[in-house]
Amino acid sequence: MSKTEIRIAIDCMGGDAGLPVTLPAACQFAKQNPDTRLLLAGDAAAIEAALRAQGSLGAGWYEILPASEVVLMDDSIEVALRRKKDSSMRVAVQAVKDGRADACISAGNTGAWMAISRYILKTLDGIDRPAIATSIPNQKGGATTMLDLGANVDCSAEHLLQFAIMGSALASAVDHHKRPTIGLLNIGEEIIKGNEIVKRAAELLRASGLNFYGNVEGDDICKGTVDVVVCDGFVGNVVLKSMEGLAKMVANMMRAEFTRDSLSMAAGVLARPVLNRFRDRVDNRRYNGAALLGLRGIVIKSHGSADAYAFVCALQRAREAVHNGLLDGTTSAIDSLRQSLQAAAALSAKITNELSDPAP
Amino acid sequence: MSKTEIRIAIDCMGGDAGLPVTLPAACQFAKQNPDTRLLLAGDAAAIEAALRAQGSLGAGWYEILPASEVVLMDDSIEVALRRKKDSSMRVAVQAVKDGRADACISAGNTGAWMAISRYILKTLDGIDRPAIATSIPNQKGGATTMLDLGANVDCSAEHLLQFAIMGSALASAVDHHKRPTIGLLNIGEEIIKGNEIVKRAAELLRASGLNFYGNVEGDDICKGTVDVVVCDGFVGNVVLKSMEGLAKMVANMMRAEFTRDSLSMAAGVLARPVLNRFRDRVDNRRYNGAALLGLRGIVIKSHGSADAYAFVCALQRAREAVHNGLLDGTTSAIDSLRQSLQAAAALSAKITNELSDPAP
Repeated sequence: MSKTEIRIAIDCMGGDAGLPVTLPAACQFAKQNPDTRLLLAGDAAAIEAALRAQGSLGAGWYEILPASEVVLMDDSIEVALRRKKDSSMRVAVQAVKDGRADACISAGNTGAWMAISRYILKTLDGIDRPAIATSIPNQKGGATTMLDLGANVDCSAEHLLQFAIMGSALASAVDHHKRPTIGLLNIGEEIIKGNEIVKRAAELLRASGLNFYGNVEGDDICKGTVDVVVCDGFVGNVVLKSMEGLAKMVANMMRAEFTRDSLSMAAGVLARPVLNRFRDRVDNRRYNGAALLGLRGIVIKSHGSADAYAFVCALQRAREAVHNGLLDGTTSAIDSLRQSLQAAAALSAKITNELSDPAP
Repeated sequence: MSKTEIRIAIDCMGGDAGLPVTLPAACQFAKQNPDTRLLLAGDAAAIEAALRAQGSLGAGWYEILPASEVVLMDDSIEVALRRKKDSSMRVAVQAVKDGRADACISAGNTGAWMAISRYILKTLDGIDRPAIATSIPNQKGGATTMLDLGANVDCSAEHLLQFAIMGSALASAVDHHKRPTIGLLNIGEEIIKGNEIVKRAAELLRASGLNFYGNVEGDDICKGTVDVVVCDGFVGNVVLKSMEGLAKMVANMMRAEFTRDSLSMAAGVLARPVLNRFRDRVDNRRYNGAALLGLRGIVIKSHGSADAYAFVCALQRAREAVHNGLLDGTTSAIDSLRQSLQAAAALSAKITNELSDPAP
């Protein structure tokens, strides 16, 4: 095993479809990335059968990590963590912990994946809570990194600052931004009273030494105003799903209009090359692969409903994260910000005192 | 003045454009709605000149309410409320207060419009804070009512319950839902810890007697899962603007692809009827006109960047709100829910006690 080889552990059983998606994706990814070795966690017999069906059995690009259990999409965290100790999820994460893999990936139950990863890998020094980050295509032709997307529902200002540090490291590693600009998601018009946590987070960010742009609004996500948009997990989750819902509705309406009658269908045939280019540009499968940040290992989450193409994209993100040193990047970002963080903590304490009896 | 005549006071000076948008819109709306009388608040000479330019001076459909000041888009609430006491905004709201108008509308500064409306009209009994609601087109071909959109950044569970009551009344009056279904915006996966306020709001809603569907996620807004989606103003504002940003990006990308080269442009010409139908379906100008709810009067807010077509749509919403008895509907909804509200308050107090020392 050469030193430059990148090893990714895959929870082959996770996701809405499981093996029928993860295995063909793994085979395709392996062909495109001969420098990568895949550790396939799951039911060994089923994996071998699927590999045989793909005509890929016996090739040197993989290794099977047998796991006797599967975490289901609706399993509670309790069940996933305490009862299913030989799950394909856990075996994949354990491979990272043991140094056998550089990254792991699952399309399964997000809560369980986060809980198992956190339990086995632990968080990095200086990080209280891991966060989930993803890339959203923007108007500038690039992608905006957004976090947190649901791991942390109630966040303090300090947590938002930590998200900013992690998001900044991710944007550096995966999207090649040298000193990513950070925006704090807020509302434009504070009609009655601002959100105190966000206001305090802005103070912390200004003092942090990060490349803090300031507050941004919802429409700045797609505008690409900043490289990284920071928000709490409740807001991030709702925003991301609202945008997914809108995108789906628009696609459905477009399809409906182009299939309404024979004239529209003819127009659709003529416009197909243009519509296909448009579809490719807004295809969010390309952006599949959220990163679970703040852990002592690279952990990627694929959309549960990902198809093989989308799962390959998520594998690609895992590979890039390893290749570009996401983990070292995050650790050194935290280290270099440790002083700022301490200053920020002092500032935060000061603000807390000042705000302890705010005017109504 | 006949009893069935509907009278709408317009802040003619508000919005990014002011008179050049509001006046042509008023004239067009008046032609379409001969049963409506418009009270035009603003600079009398400028309004008369604009009416003359429209060829509409002297017709019996309007009345000018002279106002010597204009609230600017970036005026603070302090300036709007305390310094500019003869603003077109204030004069328009005052007409409602004095019973000279059934509704008022402005495209100006949202914060100022809310503050002035609240100061002059006061809130309805049982409502602590007014909220802003709008309609978002959904997959079912109808519209989802969503609130709050930014009036209230920090909300308690009781506030969310009040938003549900007001949103339910609005959906009944404007969108003709008999017993609107209410959804509470939440995240699907509570990975670490749920948002306590939303959990408590769900308890209150279950006890309220409203047609409570349960929690909904971000993508349910466009799916049209429920008639009314309730959330705090921070989340609502960010979600709405994120969706607007995405819609704009998609429209721009589509335009870019159809103008990329001569072949694409030819395809665009052939597909134009289909594309126009599609554009009309997603045209959010049709949904212009947010309602400021919970006040003792009907107050509508148009988008600041509305063009005349969009402003006409907002006027139409004001007219429908009056015509369908939004105010009486809200008042009687509150009255009939008063018992439930008292029960909910008791329940809330009970929950507060139970949660007073929650496990971490």
